[in-house]
Amino acid sequence: MIILIYYLGLIGIAAFSITGVIAAGKKDMDIFSIVLLGVVTALGGGTLRDIILDSNPVFWISDLSYLLVSSVAAVITFFGVRLISRLFTLFLYIDAFGLALFTVLATESTINLGFNSTIAVLMGLITGIMGGMIRDVLTGKMPLLLGKEFYATPALLGAVSFVIFCQYLPTHEYNRLYAMGIIFLLRILAIQWGFYYPNWLIYNSEKRQ
Amino acid sequence: MIILIYYLGLIGIAAFSITGVIAAGKKDMDIFSIVLLGVVTALGGGTLRDIILDSNPVFWISDLSYLLVSSVAAVITFFGVRLISRLFTLFLYIDAFGLALFTVLATESTINLGFNSTIAVLMGLITGIMGGMIRDVLTGKMPLLLGKEFYATPALLGAVSFVIFCQYLPTHEYNRLYAMGIIFLLRILAIQWGFYYPNWLIYNSEKRQ
Amino acid sequence: MIILIYYLGLIGIAAFSITGVIAAGKKDMDIFSIVLLGVVTALGGGTLRDIILDSNPVFWISDLSYLLVSSVAAVITFFGVRLISRLFTLFLYIDAFGLALFTVLATESTINLGFNSTIAVLMGLITGIMGGMIRDVLTGKMPLLLGKEFYATPALLGAVSFVIFCQYLPTHEYNRLYAMGIIFLLRILAIQWGFYYPNWLIYNSEKRQ
Repeated sequence: MIILIYYLGLIGIAAFSITGVIAAGKKDMDIFSIVLLGVVTALGGGTLRDIILDSNPVFWISDLSYLLVSSVAAVITFFGVRLISRLFTLFLYIDAFGLALFTVLATESTINLGFNSTIAVLMGLITGIMGGMIRDVLTGKMPLLLGKEFYATPALLGAVSFVIFCQYLPTHEYNRLYAMGIIFLLRILAIQWGFYYPNWLIYNSEKRQ
Repeated sequence: MIILIYYLGLIGIAAFSITGVIAAGKKDMDIFSIVLLGVVTALGGGTLRDIILDSNPVFWISDLSYLLVSSVAAVITFFGVRLISRLFTLFLYIDAFGLALFTVLATESTINLGFNSTIAVLMGLITGIMGGMIRDVLTGKMPLLLGKEFYATPALLGAVSFVIFCQYLPTHEYNRLYAMGIIFLLRILAIQWGFYYPNWLIYNSEKRQ
Repeated sequence: MIILIYYLGLIGIAAFSITGVIAAGKKDMDIFSIVLLGVVTALGGGTLRDIILDSNPVFWISDLSYLLVSSVAAVITFFGVRLISRLFTLFLYIDAFGLALFTVLATESTINLGFNSTIAVLMGLITGIMGGMIRDVLTGKMPLLLGKEFYATPALLGAVSFVIFCQYLPTHEYNRLYAMGIIFLLRILAIQWGFYYPNWLIYNSEKRQ
């Protein structure tokens, strides 16, 4: 089981790296910048979490597979961008799976480190979404202006659900799956049908109360 | 006294979050992005300070009130933006008070941790201003291009004054107040009368020596 | 020898700060922003490395010379920008020397801390280039869109060479010099003749395989 999760995790890391390169790669970037883009997208969130929790060493220092897999995935994307772009929706699905997996695993491991539920949810969220935000900052996309991407909220809802499940149902293995299912499902709804917030939860500096 | 400072601190945190949302909130942001904006503005500076000093755990992990207050303040701003925008100057004043309070308290606590005065001043400064800078990066405002906002310098001058007062007058309680007064006063001058640097302290890549 | 490296390091820090201000300084910035720009460029990379490796305290906390030298260099640049702009190529050379020195020293000291070669190379790279990237983010230059600046890759190649030299030739002192020579030479080629990646290593989202 743990072995399975580990290998699924590496696949998720590869998907993060690939979607990162496809989403943010710009013409005229050299191969090194592309690899940096993929690696930062894939590993940035977990790195920030480890720094804030002072987990030592950072996860990709103790296991080099993460660096290797994200770099190789970025290099493959660099050379195979035409083919991969055609399969982009497939990679968005794997990316959704990665988001679900990492958010829930990070929430769980933060609880296991002895932190309370709020911090655990926050660390799940940071692990899931911050890589993409750092990537956007590096490529000038202004993460919080992106508008209609329903990415952070699924991760938040999944992490909150996981914490609630764990409190009321002590059957751990399935709680993970249920919470991951929520994140994955919401992302699929967003990818396929543009699922998003209702209007009254969208900021409007001119709106009347 | 310590209790009073604690509650004043929470009010300052709320003001940071509210002014953060008003200043950087853009049309079409969802409520989650708005909360992230408020929380990052309010807690970002102290987080960076704790990471650099390796204070463990980060302050909002050991006391969840900071997360709660900044999130709730952002949510209230989201729904009450019309009303709050009208009272914006009032919140700028409370924000000025928060800047004064956090800068001086962080300078003092860094000294109490055994670091020297220069590092203490720097940590006071980082605590006071970095939240807003991270917020600006996330919303694409380019913090160092903002131009005529007199925000960082009052914090710097206040922190330096505090360190000098502590060296020459060993009556702690009032030193805090004097230093906070300097920061607050300079910010009021900036908010009300546009107080800013004289021309010869403005960079001009074309200027003659 | 160690003393010599230390003073050369301070000269490199000054050059980082000066080139940072010249490259990213914009009209209308106040002197405080200019100093922040210089200091962040000069010290940002090493700071990120120390945070990731959890080296405690951060290098500029235990030795204030780094802060002092980078601040003073920025102030001098502020007032002497006209003169310094004329000598800019000279400072680019010193900056190239600084890049070579810090990348190799950081790679070496990471190895000495007991980390493996891959992490050492990465830390050398982060130390050398991240200051400039943080500076670019703060001034809205989008580091990964800069295009044709051959800066990170020389640092990477030098760090990799250093690690290889150390494995096959155990004569330390010269390994440092050889690796530094590679970085410096590649930078000079880039500064003087626009040396850059061949076309097939440039990303092109439209390209055929």
